[in-house]
Amino acid sequence: MDQILKLHKDDLDVVVQPAVGWETLNEDLALEGLFFPPDPGPGAMIGGMVGTGCSGTNAYRYGTMKDWVLSLTVVMADGTIVKTKQRPRKSSAGYDLTRTFIGSEGTLGLVTEATLKVTVKPQNTSVAICSFGSIREAANCVFKVVGEGVPIAAIEILDDVQMKCINDAGGTSRQWKEAPTLFFKFSGTASGVKENISIVQKLAKSAGSKSFEFAKSDDEAAELWSARKEALWSVMAKKRDDSDHVWTTDVAVPISSLPKIIEETKEDMRKSGLLGSIVGHVGDGNFHSIILYNDTEHDIAEGIVHRMVKRAIEMEGTATGEHGVGLVKRDYLNHELGEAAVDLMRKLKQAFDPLCLLNCDKIVRVQKPKAGEIQEW
Amino acid sequence: MDQILKLHKDDLDVVVQPAVGWETLNEDLALEGLFFPPDPGPGAMIGGMVGTGCSGTNAYRYGTMKDWVLSLTVVMADGTIVKTKQRPRKSSAGYDLTRTFIGSEGTLGLVTEATLKVTVKPQNTSVAICSFGSIREAANCVFKVVGEGVPIAAIEILDDVQMKCINDAGGTSRQWKEAPTLFFKFSGTASGVKENISIVQKLAKSAGSKSFEFAKSDDEAAELWSARKEALWSVMAKKRDDSDHVWTTDVAVPISSLPKIIEETKEDMRKSGLLGSIVGHVGDGNFHSIILYNDTEHDIAEGIVHRMVKRAIEMEGTATGEHGVGLVKRDYLNHELGEAAVDLMRKLKQAFDPLCLLNCDKIVRVQKPKAGEIQEW
Repeated sequence: MDQILKLHKDDLDVVVQPAVGWETLNEDLALEGLFFPPDPGPGAMIGGMVGTGCSGTNAYRYGTMKDWVLSLTVVMADGTIVKTKQRPRKSSAGYDLTRTFIGSEGTLGLVTEATLKVTVKPQNTSVAICSFGSIREAANCVFKVVGEGVPIAAIEILDDVQMKCINDAGGTSRQWKEAPTLFFKFSGTASGVKENISIVQKLAKSAGSKSFEFAKSDDEAAELWSARKEALWSVMAKKRDDSDHVWTTDVAVPISSLPKIIEETKEDMRKSGLLGSIVGHVGDGNFHSIILYNDTEHDIAEGIVHRMVKRAIEMEGTATGEHGVGLVKRDYLNHELGEAAVDLMRKLKQAFDPLCLLNCDKIVRVQKPKAGEIQEW
Repeated sequence: MDQILKLHKDDLDVVVQPAVGWETLNEDLALEGLFFPPDPGPGAMIGGMVGTGCSGTNAYRYGTMKDWVLSLTVVMADGTIVKTKQRPRKSSAGYDLTRTFIGSEGTLGLVTEATLKVTVKPQNTSVAICSFGSIREAANCVFKVVGEGVPIAAIEILDDVQMKCINDAGGTSRQWKEAPTLFFKFSGTASGVKENISIVQKLAKSAGSKSFEFAKSDDEAAELWSARKEALWSVMAKKRDDSDHVWTTDVAVPISSLPKIIEETKEDMRKSGLLGSIVGHVGDGNFHSIILYNDTEHDIAEGIVHRMVKRAIEMEGTATGEHGVGLVKRDYLNHELGEAAVDLMRKLKQAFDPLCLLNCDKIVRVQKPKAGEIQEW
């Protein structure tokens, strides 16, 4: 199930099996000058990416998995095989089964084939990074850039703790300022990229940036972006021994609430005594915490995650922007969406898989929980 | 139900009632330098746009309605009220109810409120038009432009019949070459727009363009685009008397099949003796036929539409790219998607509206038709 079955170069789509990795796929597509934008963690495969409705750093410019899947072939719980669509790039023909399966975490059917949109690889890309005195200043810079409509390929934020972890891990070829840092990716024509970098530099300065570096070559761009790529690994490298774990979690909020929720979550992590870093897809109002804990600290870590989700939901956000719900976050859905929406999701599950054969009780408990059965808010 | 309830400028979203028109909305948003991209026919309102999952000329650059709705408040058939999401710009929290309702044509619930994403109005836009000796040459030009990854805001195609109708109607301030014509819309920074126009001009020439005009001012851009805007009205103006009707329909195919299906459909219309023009969202592989007919010619018009849909489905396309299915196209879904997919849509309908109170039998017949009950292929 790991084959790239057919590239339709002229139609800008590709038919793949679910165990194809997005990195392998992009290596193949690059030979034709094409690429597939969703870029979750390394090693992720199309099947899992469909399951979570994933995204990544490119989502700000290109959207999420929901925007890049044309059609799915799915085996249903009763053994019937459904193909959700043919290959047109858009369609209004009937209910959107494709997007019903995306993000359904294997609870509605088993994906055996996917037809993906691809796009033309940008001719030129570059990277800039700039550091700030505070998360809030960094976020204000993002609002200026987004508000001016400057076309950016990606905007990421890493906090001071995260930058220190990257320095300590030594996985990049240089040392970084241990301050809240924005990473910008630019793409387009050579002159367009140059123009956009200069606009962003000006906006960053007016937002109080302490430093601004931009790549003058592809090698420099790779070097600057390397810090962003090392984020997760650098926290993992902090493990004291084999009993340590890393808890990665994510929430998303309306973009103007991002500075507040990051500040509050940072303060919560600081008080907890655990090491916890922040990495955010800041253009989408989505961020991750990466928390180091051992078995005796499990409840402390869980408390941090719980309060982070609660904050996000109270700010009109979501318990998860891109990781999915699974078992751990399913009982937040009532708080986030209300009981009527969760009941409707339950009806959908029951219609597609009445015997609950597929990943039963993930996302939604098939039997409505009784009063007192689930965690209090 | 026609109120704009709340603009969250910093979050780039707006909460509206369903009878808000997209044009009114954009007039309001423009005061804040913002805009809402989906641009279907004039007069369309958010509720109907959700119902059909509409798009328009901006879909090539910005995507369709499915990409611009954050959340819906929906009254279900049993009277419960569901809000599908809060306001984060992305979420992986549970099944994608929002997109399940988009394109469901009022069959799953009644939309009473929508939270829409908005974006920053591009600082500069421009327009270019170029004419070709044949539809195929025009389409080849599009493939070159799309294949080079030139960032275009819209690419539309109008055929020779359509251009003649526009001339005959006299609704624009000038006369146009009566040949297959591409309309390009550009947006971005001033220098970016200029650069892209010059790239497209070169590509158009290498594809055999017979003329290439680009706007040097906003007034000239509006003038060039005016022909595109007059397309539907100009065919309506051809009505001989009150017994004449205009049949507008659409299909979509993988983009490389577009020249073939347009050529075959044009030939079919020519043979029929009816006046029929072609207007296409050519960057998406989606096009419309606009056919003039009277009651005695109804079956001829229906035959043209039937064969156009059949061709689209046989080319791995869809019976409708943006208009929706309703009653007329519902029996094509079996051919397009297979019986298993239609059965699954039926299950979805039954789960959401078991008594079939909402727009019953649109999109999918709730009772599975017996053999011989529906039109043969």
